Amino acid sequence: MFLTFEGIDGSGKSTQARRLAETLRAAGHDVVLTREPGGSPGAEEIRRLVLEGDPDRWSPETEILLFTAARRDHMERLIVPALASEMIVISDRFVDSTRIYQGLRGAGLRETVDRLHDLMIGVEPDLTFLIDIDPGLGLSRARGRQGHEERFEDMGLAMQERMRAGFLDLARSAPARIRVIDGNRDADSIEAEVAALARAALR
Amino acid sequence: MFLTFEGIDGSGKSTQARRLAETLRAAGHDVVLTREPGGSPGAEEIRRLVLEGDPDRWSPETEILLFTAARRDHMERLIVPALASEMIVISDRFVDSTRIYQGLRGAGLRETVDRLHDLMIGVEPDLTFLIDIDPGLGLSRARGRQGHEERFEDMGLAMQERMRAGFLDLARSAPARIRVIDGNRDADSIEAEVAALARAALR
Repeated sequence: MFLTFEGIDGSGKSTQARRLAETLRAAGHDVVLTREPGGSPGAEEIRRLVLEGDPDRWSPETEILLFTAARRDHMERLIVPALASEMIVISDRFVDSTRIYQGLRGAGLRETVDRLHDLMIGVEPDLTFLIDIDPGLGLSRARGRQGHEERFEDMGLAMQERMRAGFLDLARSAPARIRVIDGNRDADSIEAEVAALARAALR
Repeated sequence: MFLTFEGIDGSGKSTQARRLAETLRAAGHDVVLTREPGGSPGAEEIRRLVLEGDPDRWSPETEILLFTAARRDHMERLIVPALASEMIVISDRFVDSTRIYQGLRGAGLRETVDRLHDLMIGVEPDLTFLIDIDPGLGLSRARGRQGHEERFEDMGLAMQERMRAGFLDLARSAPARIRVIDGNRDADSIEAEVAALARAALR
């Protein structure tokens, strides 16, 4: 079972990914909690190459290629072996983030993400939790964090709104896979809803 | 005009690329001499990521993605702007090396290289000089070099022979673009033949 968490910056998806991993472990499951970009040693090196330095050092197309290379490594070295060992894999972000963050940077880029994904990755999660939150709230949370490296957080409210709309469009196009979770609530309520959905999917 | 040099390790292609650049500059042309993998600051960083460390740290598929990312950066930052300024670009290796070195590592990989190239690069050189040399001679030359980083040189004679056969097959499939140059001669004779072909193409 391959589960992913998606959402705009500051949506609380990392907290929820961690909480779900703890809940499932407490229930006796073997769980691998991972993240993208990164998640394997090679993919983490590619992550650093992409996220450090001048934000304009890579074009959107080069960045999509680098993220796809990182995802290929992450799949081969961690996700596929864990799934083959009957473990539950929970990833904080996966290809949907690339579809939205890189795909919305220009005309034709979303199609480029999808074509590269189909050619080089070819795997979709079994279930994706889209933590949907008010873009202003997400932005203020993301800005309040210490030591964040994510450049996208600096793009402002208009970009957060575009990203949110992109994620919701994506969820409408894949309703069986992507569950939209109202993130404008306390973390315990969100955790309970996510855990119930995950348990139902594991049955 | 976009010219590339290809061939197995130790074929003398770097020497010939440099000599052709000097000859064309002496004739008054603006020439950019570059190389792959690498050729632009970002692509050189990706080159280091691929070529340093354990040879098995990346799968062939991840390596093809990383080389394609490096090539995309090299194209955008150096090759396309130079060609737009009417300069002659000479590259020591380009996509044909990826087709042969990565493409021959397993079933289906050559098709992966070609599909990624068509999707993300889409440019072929105007003229490619394939410096064809006896694989044993190439190997002994490559091994005699100081401080080489190219892992492929460690693969031995059988691999050099496979690579040579791959390059010759490729040349047969694209005879208008790829000129096979007999590299088992003194450098001056090779230089003269290459210069004559380049001059004819520039007319």
